[in-house]
Amino acid sequence: MEFDPNLKARLLFQLNEILPAECILTAEEDLRPYECDGLTAYRRVPLAVVLPTTIEQIQAITRACNSLNIPVVARGAGTGLSGGALPDANGIVLGLSRFNQILDIDTDNLTARVQPGVRNLAISQAADQYGLFYAPDPSSQIACSIGGNVAENSGGVHCLKYGLTVHNVLQIKVVTIEGEFLTIGSETFDVPGYDLLALMTGSEGMLGIVVEVLVKLTVKPETVQVLMAAFPDVTDAGDAVAAIISAGIIPAGLEMMDNPAIRAAEAFAKADYPVDAAAILLCELDGIEAEVEEQASRVRAILNLHRASTIHLAKTSGERARLWAGRKSAFPAVGRLSPDYYCMDGTIPRKHLAHVLQKIADFSTQYGLAVANVFHAGDGNLHPLILYDANRHGELEKAEQFGADILALCVQVGGSITGEHGVGHEKLDSMCVQFDSASLETFHAVKRAFDPHELLNPGKAIPTLHRCAELGRMHVHHGQLSHPELPRF
Amino acid sequence: MEFDPNLKARLLFQLNEILPAECILTAEEDLRPYECDGLTAYRRVPLAVVLPTTIEQIQAITRACNSLNIPVVARGAGTGLSGGALPDANGIVLGLSRFNQILDIDTDNLTARVQPGVRNLAISQAADQYGLFYAPDPSSQIACSIGGNVAENSGGVHCLKYGLTVHNVLQIKVVTIEGEFLTIGSETFDVPGYDLLALMTGSEGMLGIVVEVLVKLTVKPETVQVLMAAFPDVTDAGDAVAAIISAGIIPAGLEMMDNPAIRAAEAFAKADYPVDAAAILLCELDGIEAEVEEQASRVRAILNLHRASTIHLAKTSGERARLWAGRKSAFPAVGRLSPDYYCMDGTIPRKHLAHVLQKIADFSTQYGLAVANVFHAGDGNLHPLILYDANRHGELEKAEQFGADILALCVQVGGSITGEHGVGHEKLDSMCVQFDSASLETFHAVKRAFDPHELLNPGKAIPTLHRCAELGRMHVHHGQLSHPELPRF
Repeated sequence: MEFDPNLKARLLFQLNEILPAECILTAEEDLRPYECDGLTAYRRVPLAVVLPTTIEQIQAITRACNSLNIPVVARGAGTGLSGGALPDANGIVLGLSRFNQILDIDTDNLTARVQPGVRNLAISQAADQYGLFYAPDPSSQIACSIGGNVAENSGGVHCLKYGLTVHNVLQIKVVTIEGEFLTIGSETFDVPGYDLLALMTGSEGMLGIVVEVLVKLTVKPETVQVLMAAFPDVTDAGDAVAAIISAGIIPAGLEMMDNPAIRAAEAFAKADYPVDAAAILLCELDGIEAEVEEQASRVRAILNLHRASTIHLAKTSGERARLWAGRKSAFPAVGRLSPDYYCMDGTIPRKHLAHVLQKIADFSTQYGLAVANVFHAGDGNLHPLILYDANRHGELEKAEQFGADILALCVQVGGSITGEHGVGHEKLDSMCVQFDSASLETFHAVKRAFDPHELLNPGKAIPTLHRCAELGRMHVHHGQLSHPELPRF
Repeated sequence: MEFDPNLKARLLFQLNEILPAECILTAEEDLRPYECDGLTAYRRVPLAVVLPTTIEQIQAITRACNSLNIPVVARGAGTGLSGGALPDANGIVLGLSRFNQILDIDTDNLTARVQPGVRNLAISQAADQYGLFYAPDPSSQIACSIGGNVAENSGGVHCLKYGLTVHNVLQIKVVTIEGEFLTIGSETFDVPGYDLLALMTGSEGMLGIVVEVLVKLTVKPETVQVLMAAFPDVTDAGDAVAAIISAGIIPAGLEMMDNPAIRAAEAFAKADYPVDAAAILLCELDGIEAEVEEQASRVRAILNLHRASTIHLAKTSGERARLWAGRKSAFPAVGRLSPDYYCMDGTIPRKHLAHVLQKIADFSTQYGLAVANVFHAGDGNLHPLILYDANRHGELEKAEQFGADILALCVQVGGSITGEHGVGHEKLDSMCVQFDSASLETFHAVKRAFDPHELLNPGKAIPTLHRCAELGRMHVHHGQLSHPELPRF
């Protein structure tokens, strides 16, 4: 449907009153870079992209869009993997890239005040001279922005010990769709009133636009050790993960890869991984020297007890970096095995790891599609990578169905359909599996409390009841699929 | 105003359809025990108290009250200190005391599933045989219930290291005022959708009624050490706290008491406190042996650097218990110094500790009222105890104004008006200092999303804009008191 040209003209007129011309993009070639985020399978060209430089401009833009009923999709660095920043064809993209200043580093209070367009890694780089860092470290940390991290409640390898974004943000400043300016949270650990800070974190740009962030900084650990263990049996590796956590040890990172992932990563990154192992664990321990030494010896004992075939301690920082390089390149490495891959992101209680791996193997046989598994094992966050060839008729659809089955399985064992990548555009249907209609109605009521006309990032993250009803999946409750037509695992 | 007798009759008729007679209290003498919580200064007798035993009964009760427009105040153990469970004279109290079962302890996933009336300490007692405990430990933990802890987002001495209630709850089951049953959260670390788990936690019974809680359990540390340091100067003690945290050490507890509090506690509890010290710090370190040893030596060095006059390490578990007994009895101990005391609860960024203490001393002179200070120093949570005599004309009002000034000071330096006691009935006016009208409007919009007729614990936690306007304090923004009539510090 063609957008009303008069309305578009009114919008552009108002935007031109608010912003200098170089902050408004409308030419086709200027809009193309904004048509998708990291989930490149879906693309839409917005009416315009605006690149404001002041909070007052953002307030004026949202007021204008609210009065004209124009959707607003906020965008950070565009590295998201679930299409959260996919534009609305009848709306604008509000890019925060010019809000790229670190405003303050407070070494007494261990905080940094930053604009939302600041890159995640840039905070740690700026804090490094004070012996501090910003803990959440998504794989995309060299590029992703802190505003996007807040919108997606991003995690990373180190969130097992240091928490997700929500645990590392103290205060945000937000502009609402009505142009109101809100300060949410404080410089201390808690504030009264409803916890709007947690509510906004992970809300995927649907409740407000984050225009400033006060993050916690963490003191850099004195010592870091990385252990790699190889296992002839995947189940033993899964059990070792649960045993480490149950022993009261909280590693800085605890990652697992299965054989296809090991082989792909080794071929790509030459990380000295044992290519015949059924699974490897990478366990990073950090803290003060005596603590790390004692924890490492305990972890070794647990790994031996669970039949690790080899345990290797990285002896130099170069060797540690090489072990991690294999893990961090696992996605592109797997990408070389197959023309296309579909990266899933679900969570499960750790104790179900072995069971879920077996079911994923069964699905792989059933769909005739290979899968490589890479996990944040310590917190039960799975990343199965489904290999397919989009040029073969029907394989994309098979891969998507395979992925949906994995997520439904995660829900069934008490987990969830996303650990850290968000719902965005991609996982709307899986939300119908995760939540019953009463929960979805509550989400919509919360949305309306902030955005009555549903103009902020519309159509993302929370499916309509109608969509779920059409999927016939409204009867999933407490992880039990009670609808007779749905698969049971 | 007399309550409509016909409406009351209809309410009781409906309640009798739902509950056996012994679960409905209406006699004056049966209602009296419910007329206040731990904040005894305010009392109201409700129309009735109901004590359901099943979730279905709770759903039926809220549906009945919603249709009759009758307020519902949920109540746990009634130990709250801000009047959060103060009844509504035209409503019912819904007591959760009969939901007192521990349903499951999962030693693989390190969780406990409990009913809301289970006492905080009972969870740790039940988990003890597995080497586990439930970390948040409010002073009232022997009596307070986990449902109340969720409602107030309770903290405690150990929340510096282990987090508040919100960081230790994975899932809750909730009944809404419309009788809907919601499962919020999951068995894993994160779920998609808006973070309703954090939103409900600390919402003081105003968004829904918690009917089941899945809490995280923590592995008991192998070793615990407690250090007590005495300081001739309060500022040095405050700086030592900031220096310990800045060194990357996260004690299990880090508490501070000033001279009046030390003297009172020592007289009461015989804890071997140095009664001439200007301040003492209690620092608890826990973990594996080597880690605790090394941390203790670092803490000692920091304490010495900040001019501690004595540093004492408790050598036995009996001695550790005695040091803590002094701290834990500080409130009743101070209570013996004066006919009445008013316990405040505010937070500040740690770096402002010395400044805030000086201002509190100035207020004490100005109002002619003594004050004793007890802090969760590590996370900047102050508990000034203002001493007064309610029988002396005007002293209660002076104490309240003194308290309000302290809270306004907390807000001004970037902190908040409550760390862990909640807003309840007591701190409604201080909320007008903490928040601007846009924030309060957002809170009310969230409330209406869950409870359109405002029947759940009405009149608590979030003041009306009208109330704040009458107080003339609507212009406090970003900690700046911009209203010309208001005090500036």
